[in-house]
Amino acid sequence: MLTQMIIRKLFNLRNANKRNNLKLSQRCFSSHLPELTKNRYSVKRGNYAVLTEDHKQFFIDLLGSTRVITNPDECLSYNVDWIKNVRGYSTCILKPKTTEEVSNILAFCNDNRIAVCPQGGNTGLVGGSVPVFDEVVLSTSLMNKIYSINDTSGVLVCQSGCILENIDNALEEHGLMAPLDLGAKGSCHIGGNVSTNAGGLRLLRYGNLHGSVLGLEVVKADGEVIDLLSTLKKDNTGFHLKHLFIGSEGTLGIVTKVALQCPPKPRAVNLAFLGLQSFEHILRTLKRAKQELAEILSSCEMIDASTLDVCTDNLKLKSPLSQYPFYMLIETHGSNNEHDQEKLNKFLEDAIAEEYILDGTTTNEINKMKHIWDLRERITEGYTKDGYVFKYDVSLPIEKFYSIVPAMREKLANEDTVRISGYGHLGDGNIHFQVSAREFSQQLLKKIEPYVYEYTSDLRGSISAEHGIGFRKPKYIHYSKSSGSIKIMKQLKTMFDPYGILNPYKVLP
Amino acid sequence: MLTQMIIRKLFNLRNANKRNNLKLSQRCFSSHLPELTKNRYSVKRGNYAVLTEDHKQFFIDLLGSTRVITNPDECLSYNVDWIKNVRGYSTCILKPKTTEEVSNILAFCNDNRIAVCPQGGNTGLVGGSVPVFDEVVLSTSLMNKIYSINDTSGVLVCQSGCILENIDNALEEHGLMAPLDLGAKGSCHIGGNVSTNAGGLRLLRYGNLHGSVLGLEVVKADGEVIDLLSTLKKDNTGFHLKHLFIGSEGTLGIVTKVALQCPPKPRAVNLAFLGLQSFEHILRTLKRAKQELAEILSSCEMIDASTLDVCTDNLKLKSPLSQYPFYMLIETHGSNNEHDQEKLNKFLEDAIAEEYILDGTTTNEINKMKHIWDLRERITEGYTKDGYVFKYDVSLPIEKFYSIVPAMREKLANEDTVRISGYGHLGDGNIHFQVSAREFSQQLLKKIEPYVYEYTSDLRGSISAEHGIGFRKPKYIHYSKSSGSIKIMKQLKTMFDPYGILNPYKVLP
Repeated sequence: MLTQMIIRKLFNLRNANKRNNLKLSQRCFSSHLPELTKNRYSVKRGNYAVLTEDHKQFFIDLLGSTRVITNPDECLSYNVDWIKNVRGYSTCILKPKTTEEVSNILAFCNDNRIAVCPQGGNTGLVGGSVPVFDEVVLSTSLMNKIYSINDTSGVLVCQSGCILENIDNALEEHGLMAPLDLGAKGSCHIGGNVSTNAGGLRLLRYGNLHGSVLGLEVVKADGEVIDLLSTLKKDNTGFHLKHLFIGSEGTLGIVTKVALQCPPKPRAVNLAFLGLQSFEHILRTLKRAKQELAEILSSCEMIDASTLDVCTDNLKLKSPLSQYPFYMLIETHGSNNEHDQEKLNKFLEDAIAEEYILDGTTTNEINKMKHIWDLRERITEGYTKDGYVFKYDVSLPIEKFYSIVPAMREKLANEDTVRISGYGHLGDGNIHFQVSAREFSQQLLKKIEPYVYEYTSDLRGSISAEHGIGFRKPKYIHYSKSSGSIKIMKQLKTMFDPYGILNPYKVLP
Repeated sequence: MLTQMIIRKLFNLRNANKRNNLKLSQRCFSSHLPELTKNRYSVKRGNYAVLTEDHKQFFIDLLGSTRVITNPDECLSYNVDWIKNVRGYSTCILKPKTTEEVSNILAFCNDNRIAVCPQGGNTGLVGGSVPVFDEVVLSTSLMNKIYSINDTSGVLVCQSGCILENIDNALEEHGLMAPLDLGAKGSCHIGGNVSTNAGGLRLLRYGNLHGSVLGLEVVKADGEVIDLLSTLKKDNTGFHLKHLFIGSEGTLGIVTKVALQCPPKPRAVNLAFLGLQSFEHILRTLKRAKQELAEILSSCEMIDASTLDVCTDNLKLKSPLSQYPFYMLIETHGSNNEHDQEKLNKFLEDAIAEEYILDGTTTNEINKMKHIWDLRERITEGYTKDGYVFKYDVSLPIEKFYSIVPAMREKLANEDTVRISGYGHLGDGNIHFQVSAREFSQQLLKKIEPYVYEYTSDLRGSISAEHGIGFRKPKYIHYSKSSGSIKIMKQLKTMFDPYGILNPYKVLP
């Protein structure tokens, strides 16, 4: 059943590679607590109520004492994001199990002007899911019921706190799969995925959540439950309200239930890992892959040489190829392995014959595929070992996809950095671009921002392709959104949440 | 290159077919003008300005006299929908060419409280695109520029008045295709498709417009131009506003430009036309097709026997099969014809072996495929020859997809009807269901409605899967939408269009 093909060109570029041999700092900042957000960033607490014992007693009466966490040690992990970038100081974490409990919590908070930070798996990268000050945290971690999976229609209905990987495992028994896949799948919640319009590794093939979410149940700031939980693929009755809650990061309402359209799980999966000489070759390979692999293409990712080093040097993962300036991961999902391998081999043979690709390996062995995917999925983890990481997640017109990396290298030539590099969802025009340094530096930050946003805006790109705006980017939103759009967003916020209790200090400037 | 396979079972059901042999009325109501809407339906004109000569002069000064139509004969076709169901009496049709002109028209109408009916190709089926009273018609027919097509990213940018078929033809030169296909493609406008969230024949494969529209430019009721014209696949910066204009039928704003994500045009297309014994067999065949054809399945449609008759009897089209209770069209889109035919043949052989399918023919010859598609795409046209058609477009849970037809036949057993039948987008759970009669009858209407909506609502279906709400269904919207949702819709309408000038009497109750 297992096949592996190694394609190797005589033309060896090993020595042509002129990347820096970086001395890595031994200090890993990811194990240190970040400064409190209120101190690091200049932000003023809103005029919200300070939580009293009476407030806490209300929550305990509602949920019971085990689902109201007030112990400071236990509260800590809900106050800090996983990349250790921001830190709030909430003293009250609420863990509802039902929509009714969420509704009661919000109605009470709305009446008492208590700010609420909704939190799923807390895997966000822009500080959207942790409190900025002392907001009450509403964690969906106990809202983890899967209600139904329909074999024929492919529709799953579940609570918003289900972990993506658990959903995927449950779907597998029905010959289905989740329509999205992320590096954080082992901890992220589907409600958080929906609220942040998470993209991930296979958006290219399975589309975004605006396409695959069929219905939502949402609780408004005032506690009103809005039933948008359609399980139908088509429903053109009135305005399509669910989309307001997809990607608005919990600022317009809290998602409590989700209905998802799920595709059949592929019977054949193949993965190619390729070495290339230049971004120009990457573009040509992408175009060819879309034409030749067409309906079986499920992922098309790019990694530059310096990014791959965070896996090979920092995490000691082994690359199956020698060193090249660029790498691509091309994955296929299909129903017939023979057909898929024939297509993939033909595509690679042609690309090698025309010298698009210098070297490559393909596999459909699960372990080998996992090893290759690790080189892509563990990049964020590997980066934290560099020290402090300035991370950006931008969309650019495909022809300019990689241009931001050399532009930034030039801009920061005289600065003290560990690494400036890029990787990401080539097929979707979405590059993850980062600058790592031994430690956080205001001077470096000022060199990077707002330059990175100006650069993106000049190309009509998005300053946050999939990570969202969260706490860290509201003041930059105008680089990607017109003033007319921002005005409408503010009107919507006022309409849905007049006292601004839901996830304050986030998304809107 | 051309292959055709005929699969025929000995077990012949020709005589088992007990459908009525209907005597068709010779009168075709489609050539007659419908009554004025204001007379046929009890609806009260809103407190809008009555158009004066001064108003008309403003429009002539703005557009020139050739783009302001006031001649009653010329106005007529803009006042009547193509299925001859509703008729307004607008005396002023405006034909802007640019966003700026649309903006100026709306600002003027908003200031002067002049009601506006936006109109694309006027191919709608719920009276959404023609005036109810004397609203000014804003036709997008001259806004037909295609601005760009990007070969690598597959992104097309165009004005909203481009005809879908013209877009598709332009994309073909780049190896791409439009992400939707409709029977009305020769006249419908992309702006109308977006505004009504049109679904069509291949939604199953290519997803809905919420997934494939990348960006929009929209003009609000007060004339403000909102630039949401992203050409990026991923952009998570703030609320996802464009979705408010997808499917809101021109009541929140007028779409002036569209950016679409377009898939590669398939190199191989195959079509199977199958005869089946029961709906139970149809369901099994659907499930199997999703598993076996998986990534190449591009359309999965169902036609019942009585519906096929409107093509064979009324339009004199020839069916390639003898008579069966049900038919399916299964289409594949792929990049390798050999692979696709192998998959399709295997699927059909297995389905026949297990007696899911009684008879079938497959082809990849363009003319033969067109002939088979005509049996599906010309149904609406064929129906008009029955007399008056009560048309419904509902989504139902897939197991109950066809149940509405026998339920309605039982309900109307003693009524004077020509035909009660169903067909539609099986793969998307969307059935088009109709009752035809020799002529319009209030008595018959009262037997059908609200029963059809109650039936749908009881199953949590959608009372308008893809046709929208338009003029004819606002009072039924509560069958598919909760009171909380409707309240939010009304708040949004007030926010975007405080004087209610945009497409009044439509969508909202």
